Amino acid sequence: MRVLTGIQASGKLHLGNYFGAMKPMVELQEHHELFTFIANYHSLTSSKDADTLRQYTIDAAVDYLSIGIDPNKTTFWIQSHMPEVLELYWILSKFTPMGLLERAHSYKDKVAKGIPASHALFSYPVLMAADILILDTEKVPVGKDQIQHVEMTRDIAIKFNNEYGEILTLPDHLVQEDVATIPGIDGQKMSKSYNNAIDLFMDEKSLQKRCNKIVSSSTPLGEPLEYEGDNVYALASLFLNDEEKLELQARYKSGKEGYGHFKKYLKELIWEELGEAREKREYYLNHMDEVEDILAQGAKKASAIASAKMEKVKAAIGL
Amino acid sequence: MRVLTGIQASGKLHLGNYFGAMKPMVELQEHHELFTFIANYHSLTSSKDADTLRQYTIDAAVDYLSIGIDPNKTTFWIQSHMPEVLELYWILSKFTPMGLLERAHSYKDKVAKGIPASHALFSYPVLMAADILILDTEKVPVGKDQIQHVEMTRDIAIKFNNEYGEILTLPDHLVQEDVATIPGIDGQKMSKSYNNAIDLFMDEKSLQKRCNKIVSSSTPLGEPLEYEGDNVYALASLFLNDEEKLELQARYKSGKEGYGHFKKYLKELIWEELGEAREKREYYLNHMDEVEDILAQGAKKASAIASAKMEKVKAAIGL
Repeated sequence: MRVLTGIQASGKLHLGNYFGAMKPMVELQEHHELFTFIANYHSLTSSKDADTLRQYTIDAAVDYLSIGIDPNKTTFWIQSHMPEVLELYWILSKFTPMGLLERAHSYKDKVAKGIPASHALFSYPVLMAADILILDTEKVPVGKDQIQHVEMTRDIAIKFNNEYGEILTLPDHLVQEDVATIPGIDGQKMSKSYNNAIDLFMDEKSLQKRCNKIVSSSTPLGEPLEYEGDNVYALASLFLNDEEKLELQARYKSGKEGYGHFKKYLKELIWEELGEAREKREYYLNHMDEVEDILAQGAKKASAIASAKMEKVKAAIGL
Repeated sequence: MRVLTGIQASGKLHLGNYFGAMKPMVELQEHHELFTFIANYHSLTSSKDADTLRQYTIDAAVDYLSIGIDPNKTTFWIQSHMPEVLELYWILSKFTPMGLLERAHSYKDKVAKGIPASHALFSYPVLMAADILILDTEKVPVGKDQIQHVEMTRDIAIKFNNEYGEILTLPDHLVQEDVATIPGIDGQKMSKSYNNAIDLFMDEKSLQKRCNKIVSSSTPLGEPLEYEGDNVYALASLFLNDEEKLELQARYKSGKEGYGHFKKYLKELIWEELGEAREKREYYLNHMDEVEDILAQGAKKASAIASAKMEKVKAAIGL
């Protein structure tokens, strides 16, 4: 089954990204034909300057490869290295009623939050439809807030097919299992914009410092601690199986250890989990030509599929 | 001065097109660096099937070459042979506030007339801006109803330049002198959609038949005729200089000739005016490989300019 995922290049990745998006994505490549692109045409919309967009794009490539995207299994490329997608984007615009876009929650929400209402923001679902349809994607893993966009893609494809024949493959969404909300160091949902994130790739000392800043209750050392609702426990449990969770709960209840111990323990869990990724990252950062080669190979493979599709689409409509 | 014009590929050309658009365009190539493309991405919006769009596209190429587009002077290509323009279209979308598009008269008029409100129809001014800006166009000849679109192009370019540096050339509109409204055979404005057009390339017999159908008054033969307000006179005078007009007026007033004579005279004027174009058209229709070669050369030349521009644009924004 062909599965497509897009990665927003928006800066340093954190534990929330890791558990919410990266790990599930990497698992997909074991059982599906995975296509993954870094969505820099989309990121452009919210980007402020050229250097940052370029840096974030290449950072995302390095980080995802480090976390486990395997170029032998997954086709991995940068969106703007396959500009054919913008030709399909224009063509699909003919089959996109304005009412459909005007009903998009995501656009309305963003504008309500004060993001300037640009044409790019408004028409983003049409570009997303082109991303999906140009590769005959069968499944699109999305969070709940993105289901509507996959449905819009289907609506657009059905309109096209009704007029010009069964050319486009209708995709389904693949709702990812609800990952528990990952708390940030202040207990709110971990998010770059809340400044409460624990970044994935820090040196060990900085990571410990960051863990030490996690807000916890002021129960004095020597007294039993409540693990439920505790941010350190919530974060640590992401790395633990059921048995290990019970052990940690027992340590909380014993009263023999304080938050300092558990923050140290959490740091070790994170540090260990990312050990292999850190090594790979070190390697890739010293072999950027390999990263570029992987992305070039990916773009080539994706473009071959996209070009064949575009030939059919253009023949069907008379371009 | 670099001048850009676009041609809608929408079927058989008529005298209204000839005097309103084609002749003025051909004259531009004598004094400017003229770039002219057949706007098939735009025409797609209103096209019903593939064969028609393909046929209209190539017909437009043949007809404009026949009328006098000189490939040695003018860069002439088919829009979809330079897909780079759609990459700029997406990029410009970031700099296009929704309010700007929502204020476009042309979109509102079309929707008011019952044309379905598709995203392509709505976003047409952004694609037009990309057409213009990708070639560093300095002047865009437009009818009065299109001035707003050139102004929108300037607004978008200014926003881009303000954020990313002076990359885009601001175009000016070049309002074409008001051409007198060309009447159709029923006296209304000549238009394909009114079914009152006199097509440019008919055989001589059909042309005479069409001229004979022009509505005229019922003054009996032998009486003086009123030339003012007469459709035959109005059409004939398009081909005449002042002296010739006076001669024709005298013939109307003499009472010696009837409408039949003047319709025959009009046919001869049209037939003669288009003699050279007819010959060229015959030639091109028998040498379609030459037409394709001209268009390929044009696309190559335009693409070279567009690619260089896109490199600068993409470097500036970080793609």
